Amino acid sequence: MTFTRADGRAVDELRPITIERGWSAQAEGSALISFGATKVLCTASFTPGVPRWLNGQGKGWVTGEYAMLPRATNERTQRESVKGKVGGRTHEISRLIGRSLRAAIDMQALGENTIMIDCDVLQADGGTRTAAITGAFVALADSIEWARANKHVARKAEVLKNSISAVSVGIVNGVAVLDLPYEEDVRAETDMNVVMTGNGKFIEVQGTAEGAPFDGTELQALLGLAVTGNAELARIQREVLAK
Amino acid sequence: MTFTRADGRAVDELRPITIERGWSAQAEGSALISFGATKVLCTASFTPGVPRWLNGQGKGWVTGEYAMLPRATNERTQRESVKGKVGGRTHEISRLIGRSLRAAIDMQALGENTIMIDCDVLQADGGTRTAAITGAFVALADSIEWARANKHVARKAEVLKNSISAVSVGIVNGVAVLDLPYEEDVRAETDMNVVMTGNGKFIEVQGTAEGAPFDGTELQALLGLAVTGNAELARIQREVLAK
Amino acid sequence: MTFTRADGRAVDELRPITIERGWSAQAEGSALISFGATKVLCTASFTPGVPRWLNGQGKGWVTGEYAMLPRATNERTQRESVKGKVGGRTHEISRLIGRSLRAAIDMQALGENTIMIDCDVLQADGGTRTAAITGAFVALADSIEWARANKHVARKAEVLKNSISAVSVGIVNGVAVLDLPYEEDVRAETDMNVVMTGNGKFIEVQGTAEGAPFDGTELQALLGLAVTGNAELARIQREVLAK
Amino acid sequence: MTFTRADGRAVDELRPITIERGWSAQAEGSALISFGATKVLCTASFTPGVPRWLNGQGKGWVTGEYAMLPRATNERTQRESVKGKVGGRTHEISRLIGRSLRAAIDMQALGENTIMIDCDVLQADGGTRTAAITGAFVALADSIEWARANKHVARKAEVLKNSISAVSVGIVNGVAVLDLPYEEDVRAETDMNVVMTGNGKFIEVQGTAEGAPFDGTELQALLGLAVTGNAELARIQREVLAK
Amino acid sequence: MTFTRADGRAVDELRPITIERGWSAQAEGSALISFGATKVLCTASFTPGVPRWLNGQGKGWVTGEYAMLPRATNERTQRESVKGKVGGRTHEISRLIGRSLRAAIDMQALGENTIMIDCDVLQADGGTRTAAITGAFVALADSIEWARANKHVARKAEVLKNSISAVSVGIVNGVAVLDLPYEEDVRAETDMNVVMTGNGKFIEVQGTAEGAPFDGTELQALLGLAVTGNAELARIQREVLAK
Amino acid sequence: MTFTRADGRAVDELRPITIERGWSAQAEGSALISFGATKVLCTASFTPGVPRWLNGQGKGWVTGEYAMLPRATNERTQRESVKGKVGGRTHEISRLIGRSLRAAIDMQALGENTIMIDCDVLQADGGTRTAAITGAFVALADSIEWARANKHVARKAEVLKNSISAVSVGIVNGVAVLDLPYEEDVRAETDMNVVMTGNGKFIEVQGTAEGAPFDGTELQALLGLAVTGNAELARIQREVLAK
Repeated sequence: MTFTRADGRAVDELRPITIERGWSAQAEGSALISFGATKVLCTASFTPGVPRWLNGQGKGWVTGEYAMLPRATNERTQRESVKGKVGGRTHEISRLIGRSLRAAIDMQALGENTIMIDCDVLQADGGTRTAAITGAFVALADSIEWARANKHVARKAEVLKNSISAVSVGIVNGVAVLDLPYEEDVRAETDMNVVMTGNGKFIEVQGTAEGAPFDGTELQALLGLAVTGNAELARIQREVLAK
Repeated sequence: MTFTRADGRAVDELRPITIERGWSAQAEGSALISFGATKVLCTASFTPGVPRWLNGQGKGWVTGEYAMLPRATNERTQRESVKGKVGGRTHEISRLIGRSLRAAIDMQALGENTIMIDCDVLQADGGTRTAAITGAFVALADSIEWARANKHVARKAEVLKNSISAVSVGIVNGVAVLDLPYEEDVRAETDMNVVMTGNGKFIEVQGTAEGAPFDGTELQALLGLAVTGNAELARIQREVLAK
Repeated sequence: MTFTRADGRAVDELRPITIERGWSAQAEGSALISFGATKVLCTASFTPGVPRWLNGQGKGWVTGEYAMLPRATNERTQRESVKGKVGGRTHEISRLIGRSLRAAIDMQALGENTIMIDCDVLQADGGTRTAAITGAFVALADSIEWARANKHVARKAEVLKNSISAVSVGIVNGVAVLDLPYEEDVRAETDMNVVMTGNGKFIEVQGTAEGAPFDGTELQALLGLAVTGNAELARIQREVLAK
Repeated sequence: MTFTRADGRAVDELRPITIERGWSAQAEGSALISFGATKVLCTASFTPGVPRWLNGQGKGWVTGEYAMLPRATNERTQRESVKGKVGGRTHEISRLIGRSLRAAIDMQALGENTIMIDCDVLQADGGTRTAAITGAFVALADSIEWARANKHVARKAEVLKNSISAVSVGIVNGVAVLDLPYEEDVRAETDMNVVMTGNGKFIEVQGTAEGAPFDGTELQALLGLAVTGNAELARIQREVLAK
Repeated sequence: MTFTRADGRAVDELRPITIERGWSAQAEGSALISFGATKVLCTASFTPGVPRWLNGQGKGWVTGEYAMLPRATNERTQRESVKGKVGGRTHEISRLIGRSLRAAIDMQALGENTIMIDCDVLQADGGTRTAAITGAFVALADSIEWARANKHVARKAEVLKNSISAVSVGIVNGVAVLDLPYEEDVRAETDMNVVMTGNGKFIEVQGTAEGAPFDGTELQALLGLAVTGNAELARIQREVLAK
Repeated sequence: MTFTRADGRAVDELRPITIERGWSAQAEGSALISFGATKVLCTASFTPGVPRWLNGQGKGWVTGEYAMLPRATNERTQRESVKGKVGGRTHEISRLIGRSLRAAIDMQALGENTIMIDCDVLQADGGTRTAAITGAFVALADSIEWARANKHVARKAEVLKNSISAVSVGIVNGVAVLDLPYEEDVRAETDMNVVMTGNGKFIEVQGTAEGAPFDGTELQALLGLAVTGNAELARIQREVLAK
């Protein structure tokens, strides 16, 4: 209880969150999101038509790609384009983003259209995947409004079923905390990313014991914090989209 | 409650589990494990020395690789060696296997030695990653005994901290069930893989809403089944290793 | 003449050969074959249709792929999927398997269907390519019966023209010997793989002087042993397929 | 003379240029540069030590990499990391950036240190390579000051020999113009990129006839505009670095 | 003025140029060109039809590829096929060759046909890209005559708009010289490749300061030499094609 | 017996063979060899030192690489560098060339030196691998003399144990013939490449039934022709090397 976080936050407090909607002039939807010093540029590219394996089923498709600029991190990391292959971590996060955002969408209402989400980390300080998902939802929502305005989806189609946000929780020095910056992340014994809908349901729970295994009580504490954090993120998303 | 599984099992019942220890004559440890029709060959390769980035720290390393034979599945899938790259799913599972098994090991006690776990799916019918982790633990344990016998680790070193097993749980037709075969897996609304220690702690929780988001109650039901299933797997591992 | 082989075999004697037909529940044809400690899982995948370049010619296609599990060998070898390319030796053997099995088939009678043969070495102790070809023939034969039963080929079509088997011969310590295990293989001055039909004709002869060049007399001795060995393998195949 | 540019600029007028120095908190030097709607994030990563082939010669090394975010352009382009290889255009521009910035540096004075320049195009509207070079110089200069402050280079070492900037010129509708946006670039008959030092010397001249060949008079007109444009860019760089 | 070149040439003198037209029996056009000890085999492959993105526009396409035999150079260089990727320099030169030769062609007159130019350096002594372009023009011209004879282009179509040649110029020891062999190339402070039409117009100007930046006067001197050299190369091409 | 070959040769007659020794000015040994219209440029690159796995054993190493220019064939084939991988056929021939030439060399006498053989097919009309091996031997021999002259091998070291040549034989229209051009090669029922020493011993025998299997009598006829052809090639090599 007497535990103090390096940045002075309460254990159940998010870092300062900002979302610059429409940052990119080129994409159908875009958002530059910050979770503290973590900055991710999220764009949504809307294209009529679907991949071949979905053709003729009257349903749409949403998928995602995640990447980091080489100097988003404290030490430069080599470009995956130069290595000639996408690493395991990148693949894993791209798949997570795609799955999470598909849970926001009624594919039938989207019709035979594809939305490609790109999340590029410009600066990394922990929680890049959760910031990416949270920002991507805003870009996704805007791209659907663009599509509606441009008559690619029906005027009254309820394409968005849920809002989606994500937050990390973890156990640091034996205490469960919300929204870990890099400094806490590397010291966490357990690390969990939780993707939820705006009305409090779970989309994805991914918890990993980095050091010691965790017991059922700790698991419950982490899930509780995640519920709190995602509720706050959903509120911020609503505000930003209301402008 | 009146729900019936296609193979007649109770909702909290595992498929028939068999573990053939020492299947391979070449590896320091090996096991051919079956979860029903799913068959995975797990080998543990013990090598003195560690990767360069660990040199001189007095600690060991354990890592894993997962792959499927092309005709392990009902339709032949292309070899990743021929495609020239390892797919996202393969990467993700390889990373999960490595992380899970590292949780079994006291790296200090292992000393500067590396154990490489290979899990090759010979036949796939759902739950290949959980079978892989459960079988790999047996191969890992045997490779450590081999190393002890061959004086690569100290005679009394307590290298194994925990036993490790994994099981899948999911919600099918609204009912939480244990150890899903392929047929149930494709129909599951929610799918969760849970890796645990032999004494009931969590190593990894990965749950995904494939269809509808799941609420807190469903999450608790799934976690409960996973605890049951992993306890049974830990018992079987103990039996096999006692022989 | 007084030469003794490490495993006590006569110079013209095969290792114990076993063929488990139908080992895999998923493939249209399959066989787990052993030549002594060498174990290869062979599957045949039957698909209606042919590659584009064969379209509309009324003829079928058979091709093969060969691979080794990383710990099939005494020291672990890196996965070709991880390296990102298929090595020269693997390519060479895959091509040999495909060519050899095509010689078994009347492509006109097969019709516009493709059979893909996969040979995965689970344990390697010399002669993996010859075991692969010999086992693959059994898988191939079963896949054709499957296709006949499922009306993909005409009921009376004589798709199989020949049976096919392969065996290695070599000169070790100046003596010509049949079916070399790894231990003899590395010491052989000359190494030859011979693929033959069940009625004693040649499909492929590949002989290489590893040490000293070989003269015409030695070549004749090797060819003689290969004829003997393949005749025995053809007999075993007939027995297995008669069950 | 009566020619009007779509954005109302004079033929020898640059687009609005902005340079945000120190945009990234992680890199030793960084700048977010805009040439109109073109935005490039340039970072300079300073590392003690040199590539192996330069070891022990007492000299440093500077190199560059260029890339575009997938949705920097009006239509999304596929990531090069996903394609598995870096395209010809990217290679060409990366090499140009490296060569150009090396011309700014006294390698002896830099000592055995490496500076890696990353230029990532966040939004593209023509002239991305010239904006990249111009912004990269600012990041480079700051990384050298960082190195001086951190004692990686001698306090009085004159590491920077020149300032470096770059601008595009081209012939559109028969008229030579400075700093082409995308809309002019695609219509240009001739397109030239000119890299110069702050004191008016040439580092690189790359001119290409896209449509009709150009004669000596046109070549002279283009070179004249480039001299004007680069002089203005050098002035802006000086201002920004003086802050 | 008192500067002497190692091979005794005047500063504005080309090396001995030879062009063996029709060297290859297989290609529709071919030339083995020498600039001194530099030897490049250029072939032109004519194919009816165009890449998909040009379909139905009534226009043709010309593209180029450049490569070096591994032992064209004084020290053997590794094959790009073995490395698994084409290097930046190769890409850059291939693109230059394609662009340059497209400037020779009226694509409308060529009709929906594709010409692929291959330039393979058999021996390298500086100026390989300029020799490649100059030789490729001869191969290109012959492939068009072949196409005319075989009725792939109309009898009177004026497919060739210009002749194209290329030459290198550079500043060595402060003196501007024409057509640099390897020995001069490595010592050049500035290096420029200039592609021109037979009637003295510019297609491509690529100049790089390798050492010190160059001023406007030096740039003019280099351009002057390039005009002289290309005029001579155009004369030789006319002679060869007149035979 | 009344069979006539398209080019009028007797069944046991080679095509015109020419070997231009020292064709390349850069390599330590080189030969441009023609078997009729097939032309292969063979170079031998001699380097002091051996690959790491051979270090300190006092023995040398010889290896080979084979490739075709894209337009060596009647229809252009795609470059393997562009495809990003070396094909199975190329790998197979490269390995054959390396193995064959290693049989010529006393590795102990060569000492810790490496010779890399490159065989690049400039024009292909059947028998490219046999021409490559035959020409490569001449390049190899010259590189050893170069090494002797440059004191990389001892003055009296007998590095060359054998001369090596290779020839193709095949059965066309039921008749065994020597040295098949492309036209016969595609029609051959059986195709065999035989590598031999100058004193009539075998290094490699690779025979493949392309159509019908071949019997023992045909095999003997092919081997007989190969002996004749290789004897003649060995005579030509001796003549060329005697100059």
